[in-house]
Amino acid sequence: MASSASPELPKPKILNGPGDYVLEDVPHLSDYIPDLPTYPNPLQDNPAYSVVKQYFVHVDDSVPQKVVVHKDGPRGIHFRRAGARQKVYFQPDEVHACIVTCGGLCPGLNTVVREIVCGLHHMYGVNKVLGIDGGYRGFYAKNTVYLNPKAVNDIHKRGGTILGTSRGGHDTSKIVDSIQDRGINQVYIIGGDGTQRGAALIFEEIRRRGLKVSVAGIPKTIDNDIPVIDKSFGFDTAVEEAQRAINAAHVEAESFDNCIGLVKVMGRYSGFIAMHATLASRDVDCCLIPESPFYLEGPGGLFEYIEKRLKEDGHMVVVIAEGAGQELLSESIQSMTDASGNKLLQDVGLWLSQRIKDYFSKERKMLINLKYIDPTYMIRAVPSNASDNVYCTLLAQSAVHGAMAGYTGFTSGLVNGRHTYIPFNVSSS
Amino acid sequence: MASSASPELPKPKILNGPGDYVLEDVPHLSDYIPDLPTYPNPLQDNPAYSVVKQYFVHVDDSVPQKVVVHKDGPRGIHFRRAGARQKVYFQPDEVHACIVTCGGLCPGLNTVVREIVCGLHHMYGVNKVLGIDGGYRGFYAKNTVYLNPKAVNDIHKRGGTILGTSRGGHDTSKIVDSIQDRGINQVYIIGGDGTQRGAALIFEEIRRRGLKVSVAGIPKTIDNDIPVIDKSFGFDTAVEEAQRAINAAHVEAESFDNCIGLVKVMGRYSGFIAMHATLASRDVDCCLIPESPFYLEGPGGLFEYIEKRLKEDGHMVVVIAEGAGQELLSESIQSMTDASGNKLLQDVGLWLSQRIKDYFSKERKMLINLKYIDPTYMIRAVPSNASDNVYCTLLAQSAVHGAMAGYTGFTSGLVNGRHTYIPFNVSSS
Amino acid sequence: MASSASPELPKPKILNGPGDYVLEDVPHLSDYIPDLPTYPNPLQDNPAYSVVKQYFVHVDDSVPQKVVVHKDGPRGIHFRRAGARQKVYFQPDEVHACIVTCGGLCPGLNTVVREIVCGLHHMYGVNKVLGIDGGYRGFYAKNTVYLNPKAVNDIHKRGGTILGTSRGGHDTSKIVDSIQDRGINQVYIIGGDGTQRGAALIFEEIRRRGLKVSVAGIPKTIDNDIPVIDKSFGFDTAVEEAQRAINAAHVEAESFDNCIGLVKVMGRYSGFIAMHATLASRDVDCCLIPESPFYLEGPGGLFEYIEKRLKEDGHMVVVIAEGAGQELLSESIQSMTDASGNKLLQDVGLWLSQRIKDYFSKERKMLINLKYIDPTYMIRAVPSNASDNVYCTLLAQSAVHGAMAGYTGFTSGLVNGRHTYIPFNVSSS
Amino acid sequence: MASSASPELPKPKILNGPGDYVLEDVPHLSDYIPDLPTYPNPLQDNPAYSVVKQYFVHVDDSVPQKVVVHKDGPRGIHFRRAGARQKVYFQPDEVHACIVTCGGLCPGLNTVVREIVCGLHHMYGVNKVLGIDGGYRGFYAKNTVYLNPKAVNDIHKRGGTILGTSRGGHDTSKIVDSIQDRGINQVYIIGGDGTQRGAALIFEEIRRRGLKVSVAGIPKTIDNDIPVIDKSFGFDTAVEEAQRAINAAHVEAESFDNCIGLVKVMGRYSGFIAMHATLASRDVDCCLIPESPFYLEGPGGLFEYIEKRLKEDGHMVVVIAEGAGQELLSESIQSMTDASGNKLLQDVGLWLSQRIKDYFSKERKMLINLKYIDPTYMIRAVPSNASDNVYCTLLAQSAVHGAMAGYTGFTSGLVNGRHTYIPFNVSSS
Repeated sequence: MASSASPELPKPKILNGPGDYVLEDVPHLSDYIPDLPTYPNPLQDNPAYSVVKQYFVHVDDSVPQKVVVHKDGPRGIHFRRAGARQKVYFQPDEVHACIVTCGGLCPGLNTVVREIVCGLHHMYGVNKVLGIDGGYRGFYAKNTVYLNPKAVNDIHKRGGTILGTSRGGHDTSKIVDSIQDRGINQVYIIGGDGTQRGAALIFEEIRRRGLKVSVAGIPKTIDNDIPVIDKSFGFDTAVEEAQRAINAAHVEAESFDNCIGLVKVMGRYSGFIAMHATLASRDVDCCLIPESPFYLEGPGGLFEYIEKRLKEDGHMVVVIAEGAGQELLSESIQSMTDASGNKLLQDVGLWLSQRIKDYFSKERKMLINLKYIDPTYMIRAVPSNASDNVYCTLLAQSAVHGAMAGYTGFTSGLVNGRHTYIPFNVSSS
Repeated sequence: MASSASPELPKPKILNGPGDYVLEDVPHLSDYIPDLPTYPNPLQDNPAYSVVKQYFVHVDDSVPQKVVVHKDGPRGIHFRRAGARQKVYFQPDEVHACIVTCGGLCPGLNTVVREIVCGLHHMYGVNKVLGIDGGYRGFYAKNTVYLNPKAVNDIHKRGGTILGTSRGGHDTSKIVDSIQDRGINQVYIIGGDGTQRGAALIFEEIRRRGLKVSVAGIPKTIDNDIPVIDKSFGFDTAVEEAQRAINAAHVEAESFDNCIGLVKVMGRYSGFIAMHATLASRDVDCCLIPESPFYLEGPGGLFEYIEKRLKEDGHMVVVIAEGAGQELLSESIQSMTDASGNKLLQDVGLWLSQRIKDYFSKERKMLINLKYIDPTYMIRAVPSNASDNVYCTLLAQSAVHGAMAGYTGFTSGLVNGRHTYIPFNVSSS
Repeated sequence: MASSASPELPKPKILNGPGDYVLEDVPHLSDYIPDLPTYPNPLQDNPAYSVVKQYFVHVDDSVPQKVVVHKDGPRGIHFRRAGARQKVYFQPDEVHACIVTCGGLCPGLNTVVREIVCGLHHMYGVNKVLGIDGGYRGFYAKNTVYLNPKAVNDIHKRGGTILGTSRGGHDTSKIVDSIQDRGINQVYIIGGDGTQRGAALIFEEIRRRGLKVSVAGIPKTIDNDIPVIDKSFGFDTAVEEAQRAINAAHVEAESFDNCIGLVKVMGRYSGFIAMHATLASRDVDCCLIPESPFYLEGPGGLFEYIEKRLKEDGHMVVVIAEGAGQELLSESIQSMTDASGNKLLQDVGLWLSQRIKDYFSKERKMLINLKYIDPTYMIRAVPSNASDNVYCTLLAQSAVHGAMAGYTGFTSGLVNGRHTYIPFNVSSS
Repeated sequence: MASSASPELPKPKILNGPGDYVLEDVPHLSDYIPDLPTYPNPLQDNPAYSVVKQYFVHVDDSVPQKVVVHKDGPRGIHFRRAGARQKVYFQPDEVHACIVTCGGLCPGLNTVVREIVCGLHHMYGVNKVLGIDGGYRGFYAKNTVYLNPKAVNDIHKRGGTILGTSRGGHDTSKIVDSIQDRGINQVYIIGGDGTQRGAALIFEEIRRRGLKVSVAGIPKTIDNDIPVIDKSFGFDTAVEEAQRAINAAHVEAESFDNCIGLVKVMGRYSGFIAMHATLASRDVDCCLIPESPFYLEGPGGLFEYIEKRLKEDGHMVVVIAEGAGQELLSESIQSMTDASGNKLLQDVGLWLSQRIKDYFSKERKMLINLKYIDPTYMIRAVPSNASDNVYCTLLAQSAVHGAMAGYTGFTSGLVNGRHTYIPFNVSSS
């Protein structure tokens, strides 16, 4: 779809330097629009910022992707450092921004929305910020609402997204038509992998049409499975909540004989939440993740390990990421296609619960207790904690600085503890 | 079972007074053991209590069961007020107490255990308190452990029960044999309905054998479904946690189009948790409880109401107690007995989720989102909150005062805000 | 002031019955306005309520003040049971209600406000509810704002009061002028002791002027020091938060040698928060409350006890209610009137900290650590917990039912677990 | 003291490489003890680790201190990457470790203690781990206690430190005598700046005596004011709790007219907690930190700004770090030395409260409300949150890997998201 629509996909901007230094640069409006006027950054006159020396980011600042290095090793890939620039490409009253949230819920969505609105207003004097309702399709199928600092004042204390969200719906042409028709010139897109791929297409179409519109992405994935960035927003909060579920499983397991507490957490292709919650709780005996295959029966299998732990301790706690053991699960489902209960079995937590119960009752004639907890929605829907609030704020402000400075087709992301701009081709690959 | 074992079941102790006053009194060791010596309550010399005038409960204090009265109405049933008595029937070094926890988890179990141990020790100088491991069967099938204030010092900050628990296992004879053989003379039994019926049998057997053993029950039911008492311990905490799940369901529902948040909470025969969490959260559109039948299809049915709310608001929250709609559920299951997915369907939450999804996708061709949350184990396993800690402490101290005063066959319970002793025949009927 | 304005202060409405039954009844609009028309309660047609049999409160229902009774004792004082009546004295579109919050913050204020608005709207179809801004003086010195269910939808999840509050300002005439001028006919007043005395004056003035205006009070005191009612709203939440401070004091005390954790909590004339938080936390060695005098030096004094505990355990936790030891404090202050640090010394927590430090360093030459925590504002400002949310909801609904039924000059209060209407002369005496 | 005791202070180990690469290496036991035997790391046979390829850290891995770089800039200072090495310098049954915690409380202390014990046991089979009681002086003035995984199993769920702590007490000779006499060969020191300087002296003395004893530091400072490392453990938790206090101040401020919520948080020489809690809460109007001087009166002063905000919004929230405005404070104190209230005035929060109240009441004749919150001990004493638990675990495991690998005189620290070993001369400078 993308390739057919944009055969002239522009080349990545790569800069090289000594010691194998590589800068994966981000696109800029001036790449395809000549003679754009620039303006001094209004922050330089802001009393709140004037006390800080060297507030503006140096034009050459970059951040390496790799920080475990050898004395003689190459310097490798770098990203442009995020932050306020001395020159901006938009005048305050010229800006007409919009924000859209897409995909599943994640703690911190509202904070990101709030801080784009407040950042544009308080730092750059921008007052026209449109909220797109219900994800991508809201560009063409729904009403919009104007956002201002007062309207978003308390939203960071609530879970969910005030803008509403949905999956799919990225009809690139219709979206860009809507952007063009409404006169929008800054597009902030908050969403996961699919959303960011959609953002890349929107950027390409805008570039093809030669519009002065900055497209900035803020990557959202509660699973924390984006390779380049340090962690995704909401992840800390998600781990905190997942740990609560594990604590409950641990208490249940300890109170009954031969009791297994089983907790399923998010993580379709990665086990970050499972692993971090396991590390944080210190009460987990076994953590199953997509990255590491396992099997149930026979020597070295999960059943053997469970039996061992029950005999040693009388109880145990197992954490499983939703994407773990998918190949086992598909086999099971295949051999049970005539059963009416298939829907259930696609949930790895319920499936594993049943398999463990069956194994111990039927094959081992052993009386066990199994307590299964699926805290998924309770994790996704909480408000972000303090560290995520700080992180969301800085991500949003980075995106605003970037768009104001004329960068486009970029994702705002933390790399080795520094905020950077990452080109779409890297962040959504 | 009870009646066959004890055909000579003693009559309830009833006292009558003017204005149709009735006292449902509790048994006393002196009812069947003549000439028991008494001792002054050691509390009278305790500096911590000496400042309080009238610390001891008056022998005639009673508490009415009914407090909504009419000017000319009868006074009705009363219970004996709980609290320290001036005379006790045990000397400190004579007491050999034991504590057992039975049934499912409930916030506050550890606080009750702690406060029986600390109450016996600090108020009455009792040092021999045995913990029975893993419920009733621990009396004859497991090792025991002695408990002292230091060992239980921090347990009230943890969920679960340090004694372990289990269902069933009340072989009355074996239990009373164990009590007799070990020389135990105060038995504290913490558990639900079945447990309290077991306690009644243990009391009868002890009485039949003529043993100087006080049997005291502390009623535990997270469902809060004991008719006589105001509320069961752990209930406030359970409602607090249930509300968290409802909040999550509400956030999810608000963030998506046509989204239904569905939360299942405990409550097999009563909807107290569901109703109180609904009242507390103020975000629930529909609360389904066992006490109030409902149906799914047709006018006045649940589906119609859901559709109405989705059309009006775009989202809704439904709370269902686990025992609600059981008759609908059994019908469904009967018609599906050949399916392998039966296990699933016995869970009313999963069953209702499926029915709602099927109805809207198949019959109404309407795209809906449904987010189902089952917070059961996360509710049961949390530590008790402050108000439950206070309540558990007073329940435990009441039981200790009662046993020391020679009462037996009683349950410690709050009636209209006052701690009372309720005879087993009333509390477990 | 009250007596000069209303020398003809009406007599309390007392009804007597057999067995020394006494009903302390509340005033009614029909007491001083003849021939008021009545209407059927609209709730009888409300589908949400129609399923419940006997929804309406029986006209003779009353609740005894005393529930610890003797067989032959008198029945004593009773209050009218709160709840919906079959007949109401206002038509929905006739009602013009107002709500005011006065005095200090207390968890649950917003829930009470929300539920008056929602109760009037959803139960009685009332749409005109005015919010008075900033306490009593808002009646005449500030703008007002209309409230509806949407505007108050989420406020129960926030601490504080959306209406704003202040102390004092009850110029009775100006307030009643404002009520009369605006055509308000239901006045809901949420506040503490002083506020309720103000409400009594407002009621008297309204009665003197013969206005058809119901005045309903909802008692607020985070200290829980109202004698008649079971507990005040927000108290459970306050105890929960106070316990957090005590936990912190306990952790600090345990981690250092000879360390005293000292926590000051609210309670000017009563030690309820201090005592309940002490009972709940189980970590407190000493709880000082206004009801129980103490002294610092000499045998039996606080210093002696502290030294004993430090020698035994190496640490201790002291909780003090803000009103405890006031007589000691005033002595200290009197002898130090020329010092500039007086302000500090009026805070009993800071004063006691200093006294303890001085005593051990100067008189005992003993190295101690003292960690002082004053969580007052952190307690007051939290949102109400689940049990307080339920309680606030029922208090507010009771007040609404009472006002609609034509009762006036009453306080909505829980007595022995039942919601009642208490005449102002009893509740604010 | 350090210099007189060790005039032969060893030179830092510096390695240079191309592009101005510098490695600030850490000392190693083999630097001063020749011919030490090595052993294969037992982890290589551990089934829990065997699944992971390349578990061991490459001997040349290093991490740059600076990650904002320019294309042509120098590579600068690097640190040795932490983690398990293929060869270790201790056999499991040879190790006799000890752990000491010093200075003030900080969330996560218990987690670090737990994970050193569990890391030594589970990863390296070490069973002799001694807990030093009450800080440095515990080495020579107190009894010690052996720690094992069971004893520390639940301690990470509690605040404080189970080992106890104190300030000062580092008599280097006595400590090293005790280490030598007891046969301790791994010393884990958890503490702040002063503690780490003490650790450097201990290391130097051990080196001077030629002992085979590894000294590893884990830096603790709730203020987060260590320049080299990304953040100190417990900081995230501290910010979370500080934010709670700010929320309370905000609720109070919003509920009253002309109300200022003032919160003092930790931060003697740095404003990290204040700034991050401000960033996280989004409710703060003004954040005062030691790094940025301010003045009270006149144009551009704090009073002017407060008045402006009160006039615009009716309320405001100020956060102040304890070390902010110290120069103003000292002036005030100097001019008030004869007053008895000096103690009070040394607390910048109480001092600023008084100054603001005085200014507005006396100079501006303006009625204001001021609500002051000092949450210090409530912040320090909470258990660590999930992200700090993960961080503490990895810090502790890094220290264990380092000591086992024979490194000494190093601090375990996170640099640009990677765990490293930092020489004492850098970390405590």
